[in-house]
Amino acid sequence: MHSEKLKKREYEARLPALRAELLEAQNSLRKANFPVIVLFAGVDGAGKSEMVNLLNEWMDPRWLINRAYARSSDADTDIERPVFRRYWHDLPPRGQIGLFLSAWYSQVLLGSVAQTVSESEFPRHVQRICRFERTLATDGALILKFWMHLDKRRQRKQLERLEANPATAWRVTHTDWAHWAMYNRFVVAGDQIIDATDAPLAPWRVIDGADHRYRSMAIGQHILDAIKKRLNVASPVPVPTDHKPSPVDWLSGVDLKQTLNKKEYRLRREQAQGDLNRLCRQAKQQKVSSVLVFEGWDAAGKGGAIRRILRALDPRTYRVIPIAAPTEEEHAQHYLWRFWRHLPSAGNITFFDRSWYGRVLVERIEGFARTDEWQRAYNEINEFEQELVESGIMICKFWLHIDQDEQLRRFEERKTIPHKAWKLTKEDWRNREKWDVYEQAVNDMIQYTNTSYAPWTIVPANDKYTARVHVLETACEHLQKTLSSRTRR
Amino acid sequence: MHSEKLKKREYEARLPALRAELLEAQNSLRKANFPVIVLFAGVDGAGKSEMVNLLNEWMDPRWLINRAYARSSDADTDIERPVFRRYWHDLPPRGQIGLFLSAWYSQVLLGSVAQTVSESEFPRHVQRICRFERTLATDGALILKFWMHLDKRRQRKQLERLEANPATAWRVTHTDWAHWAMYNRFVVAGDQIIDATDAPLAPWRVIDGADHRYRSMAIGQHILDAIKKRLNVASPVPVPTDHKPSPVDWLSGVDLKQTLNKKEYRLRREQAQGDLNRLCRQAKQQKVSSVLVFEGWDAAGKGGAIRRILRALDPRTYRVIPIAAPTEEEHAQHYLWRFWRHLPSAGNITFFDRSWYGRVLVERIEGFARTDEWQRAYNEINEFEQELVESGIMICKFWLHIDQDEQLRRFEERKTIPHKAWKLTKEDWRNREKWDVYEQAVNDMIQYTNTSYAPWTIVPANDKYTARVHVLETACEHLQKTLSSRTRR
Repeated sequence: MHSEKLKKREYEARLPALRAELLEAQNSLRKANFPVIVLFAGVDGAGKSEMVNLLNEWMDPRWLINRAYARSSDADTDIERPVFRRYWHDLPPRGQIGLFLSAWYSQVLLGSVAQTVSESEFPRHVQRICRFERTLATDGALILKFWMHLDKRRQRKQLERLEANPATAWRVTHTDWAHWAMYNRFVVAGDQIIDATDAPLAPWRVIDGADHRYRSMAIGQHILDAIKKRLNVASPVPVPTDHKPSPVDWLSGVDLKQTLNKKEYRLRREQAQGDLNRLCRQAKQQKVSSVLVFEGWDAAGKGGAIRRILRALDPRTYRVIPIAAPTEEEHAQHYLWRFWRHLPSAGNITFFDRSWYGRVLVERIEGFARTDEWQRAYNEINEFEQELVESGIMICKFWLHIDQDEQLRRFEERKTIPHKAWKLTKEDWRNREKWDVYEQAVNDMIQYTNTSYAPWTIVPANDKYTARVHVLETACEHLQKTLSSRTRR
Repeated sequence: MHSEKLKKREYEARLPALRAELLEAQNSLRKANFPVIVLFAGVDGAGKSEMVNLLNEWMDPRWLINRAYARSSDADTDIERPVFRRYWHDLPPRGQIGLFLSAWYSQVLLGSVAQTVSESEFPRHVQRICRFERTLATDGALILKFWMHLDKRRQRKQLERLEANPATAWRVTHTDWAHWAMYNRFVVAGDQIIDATDAPLAPWRVIDGADHRYRSMAIGQHILDAIKKRLNVASPVPVPTDHKPSPVDWLSGVDLKQTLNKKEYRLRREQAQGDLNRLCRQAKQQKVSSVLVFEGWDAAGKGGAIRRILRALDPRTYRVIPIAAPTEEEHAQHYLWRFWRHLPSAGNITFFDRSWYGRVLVERIEGFARTDEWQRAYNEINEFEQELVESGIMICKFWLHIDQDEQLRRFEERKTIPHKAWKLTKEDWRNREKWDVYEQAVNDMIQYTNTSYAPWTIVPANDKYTARVHVLETACEHLQKTLSSRTRR
């Protein structure tokens, strides 16, 4: 690579205008509906940290988020949670800029250099990165990735120059020289990663880091141009999808006539609660986490089913997350962001009372999500769940199914029992009128998200006893299976 | 203690009304401006978890938060952060109810029983709890604490009964019997803790847990009465404080004439940056965290001073938190809540660009905080900082001081330089008109929060070079002192 330079005089002449324009762009961005994600990776000494510091100096730090990550052993807030949880957690809200140092590239890059990431594992790492960036980019995030380059000779020179000056010698550590010795491996790994993760919506730009004025100006200008260009696009172009209504009517096949008498219910419930308690203690020891998702018609008995499970568990190991309208902070992020927040830590359980499936149910039907948004959500959700399963989390998804008559009966009952009346809202009656469109949406949801790694369980729930035992026994089964597959490994 | 009972018939007769009223109270609470914090502690088998489950059944779970905590070794999200961080993090927002199992009592209770908390440490644990509850209660939180009691004979019977039934035998663990064997110690420790933490704004209520109907009804009724009573209080009665304007004029004594030429500035800056880098790496190894607070007049150079420090640091070890208006989620909590969110993890550094001192500066002057609120904030802040220091965090607080002429000069300069113009807002000019009241507020702040464990450093900042070097060298000094005091231990 031919090394580029910028004279001091030219740099100083151009700088004030660039800074003023960057600030102006940042200001316009605040009213925009997308975040900007800037990532720096590359060779040590090519100016990654310096660039982050410089951008902090140039722009308004109140709307900038800086994130650099220690090695994973240090990632105290994320121990034994999926690796990407912290990157999700740290994403800038719409209207703001996030500056990331290496971040989601460091594991695969350092792993490839140190050969702890094998050739066969490499594609999985890269795929995970591509998915993450694609998910954000299709939601509107502007993603800019800079690979800071330095040739081997210059890297050595840079380190030597810093070492020679007593005032800056502290900047050079053993690690720097160790990395320098592996320069060739580093460059090869870098090339592979750039190739594999360069995407139209998340492109790499390789920057020669030898001359600090050249690289600063080039990156600053590039960020400015990209933001300005994006601000001028009227609105994101919806990506056309090929959504077809589900050819299968999943709900019609459910036998809602099953019942269970009280005695048998008690027997099976207590048996299953005992089993589940034992399995959960085992899961805790083996650090297998679980996510249990409860969806279902209004009044189908989601809450009651969850409570029958809770009674079998140690309260220190679970959290129940009821999903209502998003908060302001949640609303300023990708819709999956608020679910990443609540993932269980090692060996623990999160119950979602309603979940990310709201995207393809209520948000689809009420128009809170655009057509292209809910249509691409099936795939996003599948990828999200796959990510969790690959991190060792077990997922159980329940659809509690009742028919229209049973719902009406329960609505009427709620009206008359004082301590149940609160459960019944005008929204419930409105939703009821849309039974048919919901039915289609539920069928589509099951059709397109019923994956091998996170299958749906449709629970016949006209009879509450049947439903509760069904849920409890299914949770046991899944957990049993997950635990034995882990032990076999 | 005489064991209380409630007949099944009576329980079932009273229950529907209680449930309906609890729901009604919960609904009224949602519009109220305070949270409800309910804590359960006490003897195993006396029904703590069952009570939490029951309240979840009785009330609307969307406005209930349940928190039970694993032993601290498991507290993955809080490793090496101050113990109370997680309790702060989990507090219910205003209008909601939080149900806590043992929580901030478990460490001192189990520690007293196991004799890992010595008699000399006991007061410190208790003091920390009292402060936490007082801080929340004076801010309006309704705190209800239930100590679930069971006599030794009954505890044994309870465990035996559960064990005898194959369906419930799993509920009884070795730990339960181990705790039973230590019953007497447990009760003695419990009595001591109840005595030491029973406060008018956070009272204990001892409940006999032998009869599940009696205890459920008693607790449900107590919670209901307390919420109703509190909802009927027009507004919290401001606690009168004895605030006196600071007798000392801290700012007038600052010598703003000092200057530093560029050459000497560079020399001393690089020296201090080198020192700081070395010290921070040492701090990282020794897991000493730091909090650096930057306050000062508008245009005093807070951002510039912070950046000169950042350049000496590894970006993976620090976060800069600029403090602007609180978000919706933050606003629904005690004003200190949002600072607890951003405390550094082990060995890391958080820079606050403005901070909790906004409470006694802008919030005081603009009337965002009531008089009693900002007046009691001095003490709250001192306790907050003491908590951090006792958890091993070093705190450095800087007030960057300039005079009115220098501020005007900088405002005018900002107007003319395009890349600085964004920094100047109408608010800055408005604040400037209130220079005198701010001056009084700053003097009060320094007078009342200049503690031995978290002293203020007033930085003469008319000359930027002087200010930056002053900040860098002070940070080095403090860190050096903190590190050597740790090593001596």
